Amino acid sequence: MLNDPETLAEITSLADLYEKALGDNDLGTLDALFHDGPETVRYGVGENLYGFEEIHDFRKRRPGGSPPRKVLRRVITAIGRDVAVVDLEFQRLGGTKIGRQSQTWFRTGQGWKILAAHVSLMADVS
Amino acid sequence: MLNDPETLAEITSLADLYEKALGDNDLGTLDALFHDGPETVRYGVGENLYGFEEIHDFRKRRPGGSPPRKVLRRVITAIGRDVAVVDLEFQRLGGTKIGRQSQTWFRTGQGWKILAAHVSLMADVS
Repeated sequence: MLNDPETLAEITSLADLYEKALGDNDLGTLDALFHDGPETVRYGVGENLYGFEEIHDFRKRRPGGSPPRKVLRRVITAIGRDVAVVDLEFQRLGGTKIGRQSQTWFRTGQGWKILAAHVSLMADVS
Repeated sequence: MLNDPETLAEITSLADLYEKALGDNDLGTLDALFHDGPETVRYGVGENLYGFEEIHDFRKRRPGGSPPRKVLRRVITAIGRDVAVVDLEFQRLGGTKIGRQSQTWFRTGQGWKILAAHVSLMADVS
C-alpha cells in the first residue's frame, strides 16, 4: 500500500514544482497547489493559518515571499494511489537553524492538492 | 471525499487516545500508534527522526516524556476512508509559545497508524 511507484513519481514532480514556485514567489502556482477549501491547514514558521483564504492572504502580504532556502534531505511516501506525504529539511540562506517542512497531498478532480502543511525551525531543546 | 463521518469519528477517538498516552508517557501506546517501518517520519520540537526505530529510541531516552500541555484548537480531516490528518495547537504548562502538532494517519491491517508527524513551537517571525 505504501510507495506505489507511479504515485511516488507524480508527487516527486509536484514537490519539485512547489519548491521552485516557493523560490520564485510564484503565488499563482503556490495557490493552485493548495486545496481551495476551509479544511486546508498551514502552520508556518511564525503563523497558524486555517482555510485556503487565510493561506492565500498570508502569501499575498508577505514581502518578497519565503526566504531563499536549500533542501538538505527529503522523504516522500505515497499512501495508496491518492495520498502522499512530503517531508523535508531545509536551511535558509545565511541561517543557522534547521528548517522542516511537512505536507500531505491528495488527488482531487482538479489534480493533486496540499491539504495540510507544517513548516518550522528546529529548536535547541525538545 | 473529505470528512466521511465514520472515518472522522474513528480518528477523533484515536487523536484523543494519542493525547492521553502522550500525557501519561505511555510508551507502549505511543509506539503502537506509529507505523512500524522505515517510512515513518517524526519532526519534533528539537529533533528530526526517520523510521520507527529512531522515534522509539527517542521516546525511550526522553526523561519524563513530553512536557505537559493543553490543546487549544484541533482540526481533523479525513481523506477518503483510509487516511486522515490531525492538526492542533497546544500550549505547554508554564510556556508562552504556541505549539503545533500535525499528524498523517493511515489505515493498515493492524489498525490506524501515524506515518508522519511534525511538532514545533511557533517562532516570533515567519
